Amino acid sequence: MMKTDYDLVIIGAGPAGLTAGIYAARARMNVLLLEKAAPGGQILITDWIENYPGFPEGISGYDLSEKMKIQAESLGLKIESAEVHSLNLSGQAKEIVLKDRTLTTKSLIIASGASPKKLGIGEEKFFGKGVSFCATCDGPFFKGKTVVAVGGGDTAVQESIFLTKFAKKVYLVHRRNELRAAKILQERALKNEKIEFVWDSVVTGVEGFFGLEGVKVKNLKTEEETTISANGCFIWVGILPNTFFLNDAVKTDEFGFITADAKMQTSVPGVFAAGDVRDTPLRQIATAVGDAAIAAISAEHYIENLS
Amino acid sequence: MMKTDYDLVIIGAGPAGLTAGIYAARARMNVLLLEKAAPGGQILITDWIENYPGFPEGISGYDLSEKMKIQAESLGLKIESAEVHSLNLSGQAKEIVLKDRTLTTKSLIIASGASPKKLGIGEEKFFGKGVSFCATCDGPFFKGKTVVAVGGGDTAVQESIFLTKFAKKVYLVHRRNELRAAKILQERALKNEKIEFVWDSVVTGVEGFFGLEGVKVKNLKTEEETTISANGCFIWVGILPNTFFLNDAVKTDEFGFITADAKMQTSVPGVFAAGDVRDTPLRQIATAVGDAAIAAISAEHYIENLS
Repeated sequence: MMKTDYDLVIIGAGPAGLTAGIYAARARMNVLLLEKAAPGGQILITDWIENYPGFPEGISGYDLSEKMKIQAESLGLKIESAEVHSLNLSGQAKEIVLKDRTLTTKSLIIASGASPKKLGIGEEKFFGKGVSFCATCDGPFFKGKTVVAVGGGDTAVQESIFLTKFAKKVYLVHRRNELRAAKILQERALKNEKIEFVWDSVVTGVEGFFGLEGVKVKNLKTEEETTISANGCFIWVGILPNTFFLNDAVKTDEFGFITADAKMQTSVPGVFAAGDVRDTPLRQIATAVGDAAIAAISAEHYIENLS
Repeated sequence: MMKTDYDLVIIGAGPAGLTAGIYAARARMNVLLLEKAAPGGQILITDWIENYPGFPEGISGYDLSEKMKIQAESLGLKIESAEVHSLNLSGQAKEIVLKDRTLTTKSLIIASGASPKKLGIGEEKFFGKGVSFCATCDGPFFKGKTVVAVGGGDTAVQESIFLTKFAKKVYLVHRRNELRAAKILQERALKNEKIEFVWDSVVTGVEGFFGLEGVKVKNLKTEEETTISANGCFIWVGILPNTFFLNDAVKTDEFGFITADAKMQTSVPGVFAAGDVRDTPLRQIATAVGDAAIAAISAEHYIENLS
């Protein structure tokens, strides 16, 4: 069999990557997990998780991530902090190009997750000065202040509720006149007196001199534009796959999420995808760990069958 | 919209059924979970789980099952102890026939799991008298005794290791000359002095007067038959789907496992499958919870789109 640095390299240390690591380490594969930032992925910016089975009282995203990391490392997983620059998947030995060196591996699991989508209305000027994608991280900075939240899905509604712990008022701006979020979250939000819904509306601009001072909102039905005085603007309007390194090395769907079959096999043999980065009907911690268990076992089977 | 007793009925309270219940309850669906025995399913007979992400020290099957059950119930899930006799899925209102009544529901998730496969060598004569499928349940009865275990996969090897806590000797009979189990389990078993491997062999009979006294083993290469003196025989040779009530109401694969697409949709609209009962490349708690989250959200979407 060809010689490579690793049997398996996993990209990303969110729930999918860590779970793939747990399974690969238990299978005694020579495996390395690469993570460009801190292990945990998007769940690090999730305040409270109550739908991951096994935690009746719920658990914070940080704690769950820590538990998964400790579990993976205690089973023998090696985690390295490094950003993947590009991939060369043309040969049987797959090449992973990092900043300072190139790794070779027999198989690869891409579990690089997804990131919040931006509005594209110049909000980057106020990053760290009022515009945020993470209530857990930044909520406490808005104690007694007014904030605007944007979106209508689970994340927008759940995090808006969380923001009311700090903010005196949360305007939730949504482009439709009803929410997409789970009913239990809708109920909680609708009866929360600190949340005011701004229906049929989009955010068109952010303004301020010393920091964020106002959020421009346009009603899509009346075309009327108003400015809400607010010091914070939290954006939860969807996600984009973290695939900057991918360069069409494997097939993706129209939005850039990686296409994979039931065994998590991508268009390139020996390359698997798991979790939020995959073209999947649902993006949850529960589905990420399911994907990842399958991807790891598929990688193991792939290597066993290499000549 | 048509009137039914429930929006969603879930069959089975293993990790898949309980997770579907967690998601359905959070979505504020009118949902009922039916379980014929105790919540937990096959994980109840699993001594120790170290590959379900989030539990670095591992967790017993019983404890994990309890946690999932409490979580589901605290979110509002109703669990009823009842066995499903048959299904009538021909109309839009699906009928679930129980012993004493028939329920109607808009959607259905089948998460009835799978059960250990029998050898078919007359072992049922010794059920409760030496033959078992559950080391957690029956291991302690074999303190200081000799037992035979059958199989070569994860379950057979993991549970054989567990049996050495009680038995003075475990003969592990496997039809091939190498194990299919995860490498880490193989290593542990191979260095466990209480385990003796009986390769290339199958169990052909069980015998005894007051209880199990001997296990007949045949070597497939030499055709030689020998009898191992043992008081216990633990059978771990695979699983069969729990679909006695199904009667071809939905499509299954050649082994009887239910066929479903990426959204867990079976051949009948509004009927979903999740977990071990599904035709899936891997049967793990991690994959069961992933399946189930998708099945519950798919059921919710299905109902939303009913006219």
